[in-house]
Amino acid sequence: MKINGTPYRTIWQDADGVVQVIDQRWLPHDLRIVPLRNRAEFATAIRDMWVRGAPLIGATAAWGMAVQMAADPSDASLAETWDILHETRPTAINLRWALDAMRSHLAPLPPAARAAAAAARAAEICDEDVEINRQIGLHGLAIIRDIAARKPGKPVNILTHCNAGWLATVDWGTATSPIYHADAAGIPVHVFVDETRPRNQGAQLTAWELNSHGIPHDLIVDNAGGHLMQHGEVDMVIVGTDRTTARGDVCNKIGTYLKALAAHANGVPFYVALPSPTIDWRVHDGLREIPIEERSPAEVTMVQGRGPDGAITSVQISPDGTGARNPAFDVTPAELVTGLLTERGLCPATAEGMAAMFADLKAAVAP
Amino acid sequence: MKINGTPYRTIWQDADGVVQVIDQRWLPHDLRIVPLRNRAEFATAIRDMWVRGAPLIGATAAWGMAVQMAADPSDASLAETWDILHETRPTAINLRWALDAMRSHLAPLPPAARAAAAAARAAEICDEDVEINRQIGLHGLAIIRDIAARKPGKPVNILTHCNAGWLATVDWGTATSPIYHADAAGIPVHVFVDETRPRNQGAQLTAWELNSHGIPHDLIVDNAGGHLMQHGEVDMVIVGTDRTTARGDVCNKIGTYLKALAAHANGVPFYVALPSPTIDWRVHDGLREIPIEERSPAEVTMVQGRGPDGAITSVQISPDGTGARNPAFDVTPAELVTGLLTERGLCPATAEGMAAMFADLKAAVAP
Repeated sequence: MKINGTPYRTIWQDADGVVQVIDQRWLPHDLRIVPLRNRAEFATAIRDMWVRGAPLIGATAAWGMAVQMAADPSDASLAETWDILHETRPTAINLRWALDAMRSHLAPLPPAARAAAAAARAAEICDEDVEINRQIGLHGLAIIRDIAARKPGKPVNILTHCNAGWLATVDWGTATSPIYHADAAGIPVHVFVDETRPRNQGAQLTAWELNSHGIPHDLIVDNAGGHLMQHGEVDMVIVGTDRTTARGDVCNKIGTYLKALAAHANGVPFYVALPSPTIDWRVHDGLREIPIEERSPAEVTMVQGRGPDGAITSVQISPDGTGARNPAFDVTPAELVTGLLTERGLCPATAEGMAAMFADLKAAVAP
Repeated sequence: MKINGTPYRTIWQDADGVVQVIDQRWLPHDLRIVPLRNRAEFATAIRDMWVRGAPLIGATAAWGMAVQMAADPSDASLAETWDILHETRPTAINLRWALDAMRSHLAPLPPAARAAAAAARAAEICDEDVEINRQIGLHGLAIIRDIAARKPGKPVNILTHCNAGWLATVDWGTATSPIYHADAAGIPVHVFVDETRPRNQGAQLTAWELNSHGIPHDLIVDNAGGHLMQHGEVDMVIVGTDRTTARGDVCNKIGTYLKALAAHANGVPFYVALPSPTIDWRVHDGLREIPIEERSPAEVTMVQGRGPDGAITSVQISPDGTGARNPAFDVTPAELVTGLLTERGLCPATAEGMAAMFADLKAAVAP
């Protein structure tokens, strides 16, 4: 999408073949573009969340393996790189998917052929992600158009959580793609952006995206969505997902579940934008089977922002001596999900619906 | 309650008869105890939120009038002081209640008798608040004791939202009173403290209280409670209330409703600590009848804390140009409330249950 009129992706090769990414840690206050030159830098960028969002993590890992293949295309290097990059973020299924895709593509090749093949495959993975998100957007557009038709002259109010925007993907975003498509189609939309503590990806990234693109929006605290739904101020919820099970349980940023409960209680449709690589066909019961990453207590006790002097700084909000628990994701049971917005169309959040729409993908992972 | 081993109230007369309060603006980073020596200082302390919480505001106003009576016990002074103190926070119901109680007690007395009578009545108002909260705590203790009996050797995990602690009252707090009582009774408790954006009263006040008193606790983001409940990590929820309707709908800090939904969905009992003066007998349908205050967008876009230099500062978390919506409260429908913890005992959150337990109070406001 565009930043100040210039089209960007979140990851690309520059004219010299160097992979560049947006270092998202400084948004929304500062746009920093940094090169990733070796495997260690890619691992750091994923682990320390310079890049984040399941699809972008996958794309970054793919490029990380490609860069390493240029340095050392041996079998040992291939195996070691899979391990090193896979360890950076334990929950993201796309990370594993991308690494597996790269490895299965590269392993049969002679080492001398791997560098070029890896770069080509990484670029292809990026392009595939863009196309998937474009398709998700078109299918979501149809839903937004239907809602708009029922309230002529008024904006469609969409609540979203965290950042499933283009900054989380290579382009378009998943949950935001329908919004950008609706805007482009002239449908008035307004977005309620959950700030998404502890890391405030909504306030820092989604708000920045929408602000940059000129989409009407309001930031809200994570506590506010239930109240807004009770009062008819939300027409639909669209969120992303880090991992969705074969029966449609949705693992996503912590707090998603609470919004799903509120949507269900208030008759607000709750959609999950789901690129098919994010489906984990081996897992069914998300609540019992998906391990939830616990991150640093400091993410809870500290908040980053722009201080009075303009510098980005962190403030401590709690007393010395108070600890914190910091589960990073939660699981929304399938029965709370109105539908899965996939690149192939709107899919019921049921084992049957998913198996029918993605029979080929499911078969590919069958034991 | 205790601050590092020493018992405190939020407002008290020192050995010289000077009224002292905790200036809560600097918590959790700095404990500042300040004297309030004259009416102007009391008015500032209430208006500028050195003290906050409905019961404590009432108690502070009562002492403000008492201090003024010692300086000038005339009829004019009495009338003027009611006006000046009432203007400090015009929407706080306890403020008016306390000033009315003081005025009706003092007006019939000769001016020469007013100073002593005023100090006695102010002290009595404080003691009454302490006793209400103590009773709430004893009734809540019975519930915690039952849960503890079902999990011997393990702590009872209690989730709370916002600050319904002793800092909002004269002592004990409302939602925290059962916790302090359980701790004193030797029952192991552990508290999950919702940070409570946008103003972070959980992180700044409740965590400070529990930390100072030595109650095991963890700060969590407001998004985390649903996940913890899904995984059996929460045994009960106790929250306070700003206003509860005659049928048991609970108006409380924004985000309370989301926790009530999660508790209901996961079979976690959800209790509301309710001093009977907080019941609004004239209102039934909380969702339709209670107007919800929208506060400044800056509360959402800015976060206060202690910066790297130790000074309390605010940081901006969102991009310039992004606006915010900031509803301050929400309404939890009575059907999500397991029970109301009142000073008279556990009351069903139903019109019938409340009318039965508080027949005298309900009759007093009947048309």
